[in-house]
Formats: sequence, C-alpha cells, structure tokens
Amino acid sequence: MSLAGDSDAGAAPAGTLYLVPNTLDFGMPEPLPALTDALPLGVVQRAARLRHWVAENAKTTRAFLKRVAAIEPLIAPLQEMSIVELPRPRKGAGATRTPTNVAPLLEPAHLGHDIGLISEAGLPAVADPGAALVRAAHSAGLRVVSLAGPSSMLLALAASGLNGQSFAFVGYLPADPAARGGRIRELEATSRRNGQTQLMIETPYRNAALLDALLAHLGATTELSVSWGLTLPSGATRTDRVAAWRARPTRLPPDVPAIFALLAT
Amino acid sequence: MSLAGDSDAGAAPAGTLYLVPNTLDFGMPEPLPALTDALPLGVVQRAARLRHWVAENAKTTRAFLKRVAAIEPLIAPLQEMSIVELPRPRKGAGATRTPTNVAPLLEPAHLGHDIGLISEAGLPAVADPGAALVRAAHSAGLRVVSLAGPSSMLLALAASGLNGQSFAFVGYLPADPAARGGRIRELEATSRRNGQTQLMIETPYRNAALLDALLAHLGATTELSVSWGLTLPSGATRTDRVAAWRARPTRLPPDVPAIFALLAT
Repeated sequence: MSLAGDSDAGAAPAGTLYLVPNTLDFGMPEPLPALTDALPLGVVQRAARLRHWVAENAKTTRAFLKRVAAIEPLIAPLQEMSIVELPRPRKGAGATRTPTNVAPLLEPAHLGHDIGLISEAGLPAVADPGAALVRAAHSAGLRVVSLAGPSSMLLALAASGLNGQSFAFVGYLPADPAARGGRIRELEATSRRNGQTQLMIETPYRNAALLDALLAHLGATTELSVSWGLTLPSGATRTDRVAAWRARPTRLPPDVPAIFALLAT
Repeated sequence: MSLAGDSDAGAAPAGTLYLVPNTLDFGMPEPLPALTDALPLGVVQRAARLRHWVAENAKTTRAFLKRVAAIEPLIAPLQEMSIVELPRPRKGAGATRTPTNVAPLLEPAHLGHDIGLISEAGLPAVADPGAALVRAAHSAGLRVVSLAGPSSMLLALAASGLNGQSFAFVGYLPADPAARGGRIRELEATSRRNGQTQLMIETPYRNAALLDALLAHLGATTELSVSWGLTLPSGATRTDRVAAWRARPTRLPPDVPAIFALLAT
C-alpha cells in the first residue's frame, strides 16, 4: 500500500500497474466484433491514456491499441508507445515464483508513469503470463488495479450450468495419451470428492482430440460442458452427460478457442 | 444445440437464455461508477432489449434496468417487464443439482422470448444462484449465451500476482472458529500440494474476522492476497507473505466486498 523507498521532495508519485483486459477474439477471422461488445467504455478510455505497456505479445498489443484508437484518441502516436514483451514463460509450477527477473520492467512506474499489462486475450496473469510482474509490483509497493473485463473461463463456467460455488481451473492436460487419461480420471475423482467443477483449456487445434479423450475416460454419468467461440456470434455451449455426448457427438469447430468443464456426481 | 420438441409449422423459434453480468458495486454508497465503467456497451444494449428476466433479486434488477435506461432505451416500460426471482438457494453441495423445480421459469423461452438471468453483482451462476436454471436450459435444448462482464474472483486473482495457471474457488469458509481453522489449514495444504491458488469470499461485515483467522492459522511464508472494492475508485489489492501481514496489519474497510486468495509454497 505504501510506496517503496524514500520520498524525495521533487519525486513524482509512483505510477500504477493497470491490468488491462483484452477481447476474446484473438486469432479469429475478420471482421472482429466491436471492442465495446467485450470491454467497458471506461476501460477503453483508460487504456487510451497509457503510454507504457508490458505485453504478452507486442504485435497483438499494437492491434489492440488500433482498435482503442478508433474509439478514443491515444495519448501518443502508436510508434511512440513503449511496448515491452514479457519474458517467455517457463513451463511448470515454478514459473510464477521467480519474479526477480521481471522487476526492471516496472521501472517506468518508479519514474511516475502508469503501466498497462495486457495479454493476447482475456485477463492478464490468469491462464496467461504476467503473474510474476504483478507479484513484483506488490513487492515494490506499487498500486495494482484490475480493470473490468471478461474471462473466458468464468463465462464458460456460468454458461455450463455446472457448480459455480466451487470450481478449479487446472490449465492444460498432459499431451501424452496415457498421462492424459490418468489425469482425466484424477480430475473426475477430485470433482466427485469435492463436488467441484474442473475447468481446463487446450490449444484450439487439439480441441477435438481433448474432447475424444474426455469421452473415452470419463464415466457415463459425469457432466461435461464445452464452450467455444465465447463472445463471438458463432459461440455456443453444450452441457450434457457423457453418455449423451457419446450418443450424439458434437464436432468442435477447428481453430476456435474452447473451454472444457466437468462435474462428477 | 437442437431445440427440444417438435417444430410446429407456426411456432416461433425458442428464445435464448442470456447470462447478463451486473456491476460489482452492489450495496456501495452513491454515487455509483458509470455502468459503462464495468460493462461493455454491447452488453448494455443487449440488456435493454430483454423483456423477460429471472433474477437473484427483483429490486436490484429494477435498479440495474434504470441504469441501463440512462444509456439505451428499454424495450418496454419498467413496470411492464417480467422479473421473476429465483428460488432461494439451499445450502450445501446438492444445491445446483436439482434443476427440476426451476424449469417452469424458462417457459417464456419456449414461447419464443429471450430471457435474461442476472445476479445482484457480477456474473450470474458463479458464486451465486442460477446454475440450476442454466442446467435446466441445456436440458430443454435452449441456447445459452454468457455476455461479457467482470467477475470479482478473476479480477482479484489477476491483481494478486499469485498463480493464475492453477486456482480453485472454494466459496465461504465455515463460521465455527474451530471448523474454520481446520478448513484454512486444509486449503493451505491443498495449495502447497498442487501449487494451486485458493480463492474464497466472505460476507463483507465478516471480512476483518476472516482476515484475522487467516493470519492466525496460515504459515508465515504463505502468500496472502486481499482485494477489496474491485472496480471502485477506493478499491485496492494487497499481496504479502503472512509474516508481513502480521507485522504490518491492514484494516479492511467495513461493508466493502472483498476476495481472499492464498498460495502456499
């Protein structure tokens, strides 16, 4: 809460780290939905006033800022913006626990400038890189503000009709078929034991394979929900028992982001 | 995906169940932030076109629709809207699994009308009633669409800087002090074992008591994050190790919604 370091008489107050939500239409074909179908106008206006950015991907951040500029004038021309990419995340559980190497990215805030943190899609630092930067900001005593925006996981959970009082997001499943099958049965057991909805994601081109694996390994009475193309006109959600999915399969569209959720009873 | 029942020649196509996000300023003193600081304009416009509502609370739904009307004309005068309240949720894990009693609330959709489902704050059916209605909609073959909006849990998770690749939301902790302490130690063990951030909520007037309990029962090196007043100008997030919280306590503002997150390493 307090600002780090001594306050020199002439020093500017430290800047804030704003977590800026992106739309959920990353990688989708044009025309994209209007930015104001996915993000609050107040958030778009706040984004337009930020000159310093830390991004999962600089190119998609510039594309985002062009969409912002169509609604609200940017504080500076795009080519004068500072857009620094986050280091590529390391795989594994330790990835979010080594914040030291990202602390230099917060330097503009120590000089009094607000910083925007942004992902390719959805909320930064959730199922996406950026948590280490946020943790480093707290360690440095900087103010951190999440701006309101959509999370595909939570929109999928709401649309599933499965238990929204207790749920877990477990990220990606193993790629190896045997390990994947074991993990699916483990998640089903956890769901049954805790009455807890289990949410997972997959790289879009593997969505059909993940659905096949879920239908192969889950019990017939387990409920399975798949949401795809959330916030897009073509988006849809199907929730059914596994037995019904097997009897009447749904072919997931290729290359469209999807979220999978299961609840065992 | 397909509509239930036979399609009579003259029957209207079935309506869609829209999950309409609400703002996160429920119960906060006036003046409230602008609706467009929290919700996309496209979502506000969609809400203005809905005449049939199923709500956690009819009174707060009318207040929401008044805020909508200040931006976009409503399809009908407020007193002509149909606003039906959800049955009060039963406590316990079985609450989301008895959808039969809510199916009649979907009757307008079978007659061709779209329905809006809305909570007092945030996304419907997530840490809130409504999941049973959504599940019943899937069973009836109705289309279900989540509209983009903020979830306080996910905004808090993003702002925490804790692990956003694996997390669980566990709802409320037990009120009994002994049971609460045991549950806190259990959540800490789960977090350590799975590298999984654990998120929980509390009724605002009990926030200070929950913080005291967390500081009493968690290990000194466990990371604890508290976000309060999310999306409000006075909102803030503190993330620190438990030892630092104990050395330098934060007094949470009374009557402001808060989200608690812990990660044990």
